[in-house]
Amino acid sequence: MSLNSVLAHIDADQENALTRLLDLLRIQSISTDPAYKDECDKAADWLVADLAGLGFDASKRPTPGHPMVMAHAPGEGTHVMFYGHYDVQPVDPLSLWDSPPFEPQIEDTPNGKVIRGRGASDDKGQLMTFIEACRAWKAVTGSLPIKVSVFLEGEEESSSPSLVPFMKENTDELRADVTLICDTGMARPDTPGIVTMLRGLVGQEVKITGPARDLHSGMYGGIAMNPIRVLNKALAALHDENGRVTLDGFYDGVPDLPEQVAKQWQGLGFDSAEFLGEVGLKHPAGEAGFTGLEQIWSRPTCDVNGIWGGYTGDGFKTVLPSTAQAKISFRLVGQQDPQQIRDAFQAHMRRHLPEDCEIEFIDYGLSRASVMEIDNPAFEKARQALSDEWQVEAAYVGCGGSIPIAGHFQNIIGTQSMLIGFGQDDDNIHSPNEKYDLRAFHKGIRSWARILAALA
Amino acid sequence: MSLNSVLAHIDADQENALTRLLDLLRIQSISTDPAYKDECDKAADWLVADLAGLGFDASKRPTPGHPMVMAHAPGEGTHVMFYGHYDVQPVDPLSLWDSPPFEPQIEDTPNGKVIRGRGASDDKGQLMTFIEACRAWKAVTGSLPIKVSVFLEGEEESSSPSLVPFMKENTDELRADVTLICDTGMARPDTPGIVTMLRGLVGQEVKITGPARDLHSGMYGGIAMNPIRVLNKALAALHDENGRVTLDGFYDGVPDLPEQVAKQWQGLGFDSAEFLGEVGLKHPAGEAGFTGLEQIWSRPTCDVNGIWGGYTGDGFKTVLPSTAQAKISFRLVGQQDPQQIRDAFQAHMRRHLPEDCEIEFIDYGLSRASVMEIDNPAFEKARQALSDEWQVEAAYVGCGGSIPIAGHFQNIIGTQSMLIGFGQDDDNIHSPNEKYDLRAFHKGIRSWARILAALA
Repeated sequence: MSLNSVLAHIDADQENALTRLLDLLRIQSISTDPAYKDECDKAADWLVADLAGLGFDASKRPTPGHPMVMAHAPGEGTHVMFYGHYDVQPVDPLSLWDSPPFEPQIEDTPNGKVIRGRGASDDKGQLMTFIEACRAWKAVTGSLPIKVSVFLEGEEESSSPSLVPFMKENTDELRADVTLICDTGMARPDTPGIVTMLRGLVGQEVKITGPARDLHSGMYGGIAMNPIRVLNKALAALHDENGRVTLDGFYDGVPDLPEQVAKQWQGLGFDSAEFLGEVGLKHPAGEAGFTGLEQIWSRPTCDVNGIWGGYTGDGFKTVLPSTAQAKISFRLVGQQDPQQIRDAFQAHMRRHLPEDCEIEFIDYGLSRASVMEIDNPAFEKARQALSDEWQVEAAYVGCGGSIPIAGHFQNIIGTQSMLIGFGQDDDNIHSPNEKYDLRAFHKGIRSWARILAALA
Repeated sequence: MSLNSVLAHIDADQENALTRLLDLLRIQSISTDPAYKDECDKAADWLVADLAGLGFDASKRPTPGHPMVMAHAPGEGTHVMFYGHYDVQPVDPLSLWDSPPFEPQIEDTPNGKVIRGRGASDDKGQLMTFIEACRAWKAVTGSLPIKVSVFLEGEEESSSPSLVPFMKENTDELRADVTLICDTGMARPDTPGIVTMLRGLVGQEVKITGPARDLHSGMYGGIAMNPIRVLNKALAALHDENGRVTLDGFYDGVPDLPEQVAKQWQGLGFDSAEFLGEVGLKHPAGEAGFTGLEQIWSRPTCDVNGIWGGYTGDGFKTVLPSTAQAKISFRLVGQQDPQQIRDAFQAHMRRHLPEDCEIEFIDYGLSRASVMEIDNPAFEKARQALSDEWQVEAAYVGCGGSIPIAGHFQNIIGTQSMLIGFGQDDDNIHSPNEKYDLRAFHKGIRSWARILAALA
């Protein structure tokens, strides 16, 4: 039977698969920083070459930003479109990394071997699980069991400015029976999941200007408005005492969690104290009256992702600064309207602005939440294949992160996405010391090999 | 008559005086940054050599930090101790300077020629007004009209850690009939002042730690407490709706302004809208019910001088940071107790701290406000000399900045200080493009020459 031979090949070829992944991880494809533009290009070239080597008709497609990678392999029956992203997050603060972020290495840890380096989990390690599964099928049977296309982006970590225009211009080429996305985590450490609920995102940068220049707080303190004070007041008023977001109409379109889903989530045995304990916290900080899973999967949020103003170096400087800035993001669920929330946020900030201060905003992405229609039979087939590989019942789950691509495939292309990933909560994605479990990489490849068979 | 000859010599020697000041301004004596330690030493050496050349018994005195400069000239009658500081503020943000901060130059402006560069006003230009006055007396008469000592510090811009121990170890050497300090500004653009009320300072740095590491706000947003949110809430609660500071007991020891002083201040014709208009603001932001001059001279304040946390670079990063930090200063008046206010601030911050967050504080200076006893006849003599030079009645005024040295001379040495300076509100001290009016430098030298004569 082909599948067993393919799985055996995957096991035997594990060292080579790892060597290929480490090669890709060495490429410093930080998309948000223009200094790394050539590295992003290099990552795209690497993937085009690798896919072409597997018999894909692969090409790099230019965009106004970083290029897309598109690849199509011939095949029969079901057509799947696989999506991943080759760009990675910035690495600062560099001083907190135990090893250089772009010199990936295999480390022994109390929980087994891990692949350490930026992008190991998000998303290079994950996307390579799919490509390696294709490689194994091709090596053992000479072809893929179904028709496979691959679509890789290089701007996922920088709000995907080129994605929607590219998708709108290439709708036919991107259409398949179902989209496969590998950029999420396991439902529980040993339980795979298919994400069917994704939060949306509103990102805003705000700059408040008070005095025309930095002032001496001795000479002007008291009489001159301090923009940090204005910013603090306005941001502090974003949450009430119960952790609810105070923007007008913020909860419009936020659905109640269906009772059936709530029960399924209770069955996952998620423990908020344990989840938070891993990062040194104890108490859920979200809306009072909601479970921890609801707070991260099905409830909307607001976080200040960065704040700065005045003197931030060593020592003390009694400056009364001219400006204060912050980056704020909202995670959206259900039918929340990103435009409306952006407008409500800006109105909130303006309401807190003294007459003689000025305010500016920069938009960083507006995306709706997505909920998948799981009546497509591919969902149940994939869930069964995952259950077979991991020897436990795979679950339909939510995801706190924003993966707007699933919504774009729904809205622009008209296809549902199966979000299947093998990341762990402690992978440190977007943080220093990012890692991907070697077991996740190995069983991830085997999972996709099984899913390709199941969809045949 | 000697004084007229001395004033004529000052006028004739103006170019040389300027050359000497520019030499001193080229030394990058930033005291708060350890990278500039050698430059601080160099500035001290420069001043020792200059004073020795004027016949002072001058020496550099080591401290655990930057050295002091002490110098004594022989003389009869009244003994004055002059204080200034040779260190300067950091120069960031460097990009906002129109010319390099340590390449001083003379510029034409609509308001006359200015000396542009870091330290031009605060305090190298000011301290040199006194030294140049001594130089002129020495050149014309061969000696000084009274007994003069000079005491220069190199840590004034970094909370003066070595000052109090040094003063306590050298009380006899620092005692004189009166202390002269040149580190303040004019009462009004054309009206000189003697500062007799100085605000004190409490400086605090605070660091709040939430999660043990930076998190992905998609995965943890909602459930994990964001330390920026904690910091915003706590700092926003430092002021009430009327601009009053909310700390427990903050206004203990804050005196009412004596009616007589209030009347004198009204006579200065200070216009809040005009004062604020120069820096692009309109409305006094301090306590409701107090005049603009009271807000900057006689009322206590609280300002956030710096805030930072999370991702602050270009683009957007959906991080939920581990830490958030801020630098906060309080300006004190009357009998406010710095220790009590520091404790009240720390208690306030702890009250706003969720159980699973941690907080750390760094002290940056604790100094009381000072009020001078002006019954010493030297005050009236100096005020008359200033009035003669500027052809307008000089005033006794308050000062918003903290110049703890005056309090130290009161408390440790037992002498009153006359704070006489020639800075302008638009000197940009502690900011990019610091300047000192050439007129201030010239008439400042002439003012001190007259004061030395008046005290003889």
